[in-house]
Amino acid sequence: MLPFSLKEYKKRLDQTKKSMLERGIEVLIVTNPANMNYLSGYNSWSFYVDQMLIVIVDEDQPIWIGRKMDANAAKATTWLYHENIIPYPEDYVHSKIKHPSEFAAQILTQIGQSKSRIGLEMDSYYFSAQSYECLKKNLPNAIFSDASLLVNYVRIVKSDQEIEFIKRAAKIVEIGMQTAVNSIQEGVRECDAVANIYGDLIRGTSEFGGDYPAIVPMLPAGENTSTPHITWTDKKYTNNQMVIIEIAGCYQRYHSPLARTVSLGKPSQEALDVSKIVVEGLNAALEAVKPGATCEELEIAWSKVISKHGIVKDSRIGYSMGLNYPPDWGEHTASIRRGDLTVLQPNMTFHLIPGLWFDNYGIEISESFRVTETGCEVLTNFPRQLFVNESHNLQV
Amino acid sequence: MLPFSLKEYKKRLDQTKKSMLERGIEVLIVTNPANMNYLSGYNSWSFYVDQMLIVIVDEDQPIWIGRKMDANAAKATTWLYHENIIPYPEDYVHSKIKHPSEFAAQILTQIGQSKSRIGLEMDSYYFSAQSYECLKKNLPNAIFSDASLLVNYVRIVKSDQEIEFIKRAAKIVEIGMQTAVNSIQEGVRECDAVANIYGDLIRGTSEFGGDYPAIVPMLPAGENTSTPHITWTDKKYTNNQMVIIEIAGCYQRYHSPLARTVSLGKPSQEALDVSKIVVEGLNAALEAVKPGATCEELEIAWSKVISKHGIVKDSRIGYSMGLNYPPDWGEHTASIRRGDLTVLQPNMTFHLIPGLWFDNYGIEISESFRVTETGCEVLTNFPRQLFVNESHNLQV
Repeated sequence: MLPFSLKEYKKRLDQTKKSMLERGIEVLIVTNPANMNYLSGYNSWSFYVDQMLIVIVDEDQPIWIGRKMDANAAKATTWLYHENIIPYPEDYVHSKIKHPSEFAAQILTQIGQSKSRIGLEMDSYYFSAQSYECLKKNLPNAIFSDASLLVNYVRIVKSDQEIEFIKRAAKIVEIGMQTAVNSIQEGVRECDAVANIYGDLIRGTSEFGGDYPAIVPMLPAGENTSTPHITWTDKKYTNNQMVIIEIAGCYQRYHSPLARTVSLGKPSQEALDVSKIVVEGLNAALEAVKPGATCEELEIAWSKVISKHGIVKDSRIGYSMGLNYPPDWGEHTASIRRGDLTVLQPNMTFHLIPGLWFDNYGIEISESFRVTETGCEVLTNFPRQLFVNESHNLQV
Repeated sequence: MLPFSLKEYKKRLDQTKKSMLERGIEVLIVTNPANMNYLSGYNSWSFYVDQMLIVIVDEDQPIWIGRKMDANAAKATTWLYHENIIPYPEDYVHSKIKHPSEFAAQILTQIGQSKSRIGLEMDSYYFSAQSYECLKKNLPNAIFSDASLLVNYVRIVKSDQEIEFIKRAAKIVEIGMQTAVNSIQEGVRECDAVANIYGDLIRGTSEFGGDYPAIVPMLPAGENTSTPHITWTDKKYTNNQMVIIEIAGCYQRYHSPLARTVSLGKPSQEALDVSKIVVEGLNAALEAVKPGATCEELEIAWSKVISKHGIVKDSRIGYSMGLNYPPDWGEHTASIRRGDLTVLQPNMTFHLIPGLWFDNYGIEISESFRVTETGCEVLTNFPRQLFVNESHNLQV
């Protein structure tokens, strides 16, 4: 049932331990579900309760600690020996008197790690401030340090098999985006368009099925295109609306995001012009991709194009992406923005999403790409343009 | 665009302030997106970056702090004056050198709250240990306390309009469950069944569209029915598999969860017997629902039935639910389990999900219900039984 070879998991673990040693960390408590999956294979929608993977520098295998009800999932999805899967009893779940981190502290104490230098993912969604306080209280002699993105940085360069998974996700998002362009029509309810898109993202292709993307489809319409993270309503699309579509295909938790914009009815000349600027800037950034370039250089290539047209934009235009769980498919490591000096290496993967938002509309046209040995491989094959859907008369 | 009246939001805020006063809290930092929505209306998939609502006991309106890119969403979805919507600059997002909580601390200092008694949601998914450390460092004279479930407990009794929303979600889940029972057939890929179900949950009814449920459809099949939180694969269903379906309808972020089990092919006598025990136990628990009863009493009613049949189960069998965001539709307040002495009140809403899992299969048959003035109202109308789908010959 493991999606990757045991050899690949062990390599990931070795790289993690190397990074731990560099930072003087003896025990790493991994709570980010993408990092748990990356190191052990663990894959289950159980991150709404406390769970962790404990990596110890001088132990061959990590230890999984989670809810008793999920121990079978750990046995089914990980490469760990069953004795390394340690469940806490059910009465720790959403309890006001017990906390799973008390249980974890007891385990760490039993295995002689109560005085160790322990790294914590302080910025993980699924490691609460309460867990943190609980660990500090129950392990008073441990020395804690922040190891928030330690595993995320190990993940930043993908293996060839990970790239294959991301390419499958790219095939899926091409299908989903075509469905979006077909479905978003005057008189169609937003929820009905999303239902079609979401269905197709999960259906995948006839060779491989889709997984749930870490973010739901984003389809802000009309004035809401200036509010990029608002989700859908049950209103009907009307003529002369702009609709932004930001979705991802997902295969075995690996993502390929993609954004396009649809104009319902003839767009204004300004919107057409802006869409061309976005594409010109996107292309310029993609052309700047090569091993050795920095993330910042891609943003500069984009900025040069838009500033030539008198436009200034201060948010980042992309981020490293791949394996993930809700609420984000971004990896929180490299960002394509001014000041990010991350050096591009082959098999890094990014979502380059240079949107331009104005007071009452916005345009996003994005690509996901892989850094190759010599330049850039765009992962999806989908026309890079503003789509115009005339009333009851589809034009792609 | 507000789904509830201004009067309802103000009532919620007043109840929150009352609870703050009882606990000696002057300033409450709300980071749980369901609580942010409940108090302000704020609704956007932006919780993957730091954001908060600050409730101050002697101020009429809360303050929204979030990413600059999301300030338009706050203007579009909340009842707050625009001057109470305070965005932090984009370079705080996923930065290694700046943290949004530094920005929030500066705002709190500017408005004279740097020495206040501040309540924090220490157990919120979207309030990180890093945010906590950052607030403590930047507000050294503030007195922090844990206010994790303060707003959740205000939410536990629903208004009539909230009940109406939950009932709409119940209509949606009935459609989704019928699609599930129809779609799960020998030879169908799991992902294709989920695509149908998910599509219908989002499509909703012709009168009202569906929203994204806080948890993706859970459909563990075969041996995986003993691993309740594993998600789907692209394998085909085979004859003689059991498939558990746990889904929720969602309307404007309000949920109605429902679980059923399908047997592909003739079930074993044991599985049939177990399904009847689950229904008998479920019915006994529902009959115990009335204002004044405790959550524990429902679990005892269930346990009496199953122990009569020689079965012991140690996990909880339900939880308070309603408004929520990923990763959980549960409210983390009352649980239907031994030791939970929460007293039932009219308009509390629960998901009662008494599953029985064995080594190689499991059965779940659940209901969502509302406590009425005199007893219990089951929210969905769907046959309470094990469904049997014979090969290519649907039997409901």
